[in-house]
Amino acid sequence: MSLTEKFDSVTVATKANVYFDGKCVSHGIVLADGTKKSVGVILPATLTFNTGAPEIMEGVAGSCRVRLKGESEWTVYGAGESFNVPANSSFDIEVAGEPYHYVCHFG
Amino acid sequence: MSLTEKFDSVTVATKANVYFDGKCVSHGIVLADGTKKSVGVILPATLTFNTGAPEIMEGVAGSCRVRLKGESEWTVYGAGESFNVPANSSFDIEVAGEPYHYVCHFG
Repeated sequence: MSLTEKFDSVTVATKANVYFDGKCVSHGIVLADGTKKSVGVILPATLTFNTGAPEIMEGVAGSCRVRLKGESEWTVYGAGESFNVPANSSFDIEVAGEPYHYVCHFG
Repeated sequence: MSLTEKFDSVTVATKANVYFDGKCVSHGIVLADGTKKSVGVILPATLTFNTGAPEIMEGVAGSCRVRLKGESEWTVYGAGESFNVPANSSFDIEVAGEPYHYVCHFG
């Protein structure tokens, strides 16, 4: 299991992105090469996110269950595991118990 | 009014700090010179925080009411405004309506 514990030499936005009344909170970061990512946390809840650009969600703590658009089955992802979401799609995510901490990689 | 919209060339921890069941979520950052800060958000709630090191809380969006330990009056702080909390003390903070986004400067 490998996971990203930190990012070095990044620019971080001080204002957070707050979604679903705070059930999801993230901060945007920009890497030295211009790549944009976000670091965030999802509190216990079942939420549906829509994607514009494709996303890779990397878990860094906690776990979640995910159901991509068009799928009937849920899949569990924990820390050190990632899942891909296509562009212009959506996914359901369920977090229970402990918060799920993630890095969202775009593109 | 001036406020810190972003920090450049920092290291950011990918795992958030989650306090009070998620009513407060922050990410720790380390500046190039080793200075530690955090960027966070407080959702609508009334909370009491204890300090170890002295803190300067800088609002970057939203507003809050604050009552330092030993004070009887509440003071309102908005974006671009800061308040100081002594070491080994505490403060009550009330956020209503919109989330309060902040930078916490230590020491």
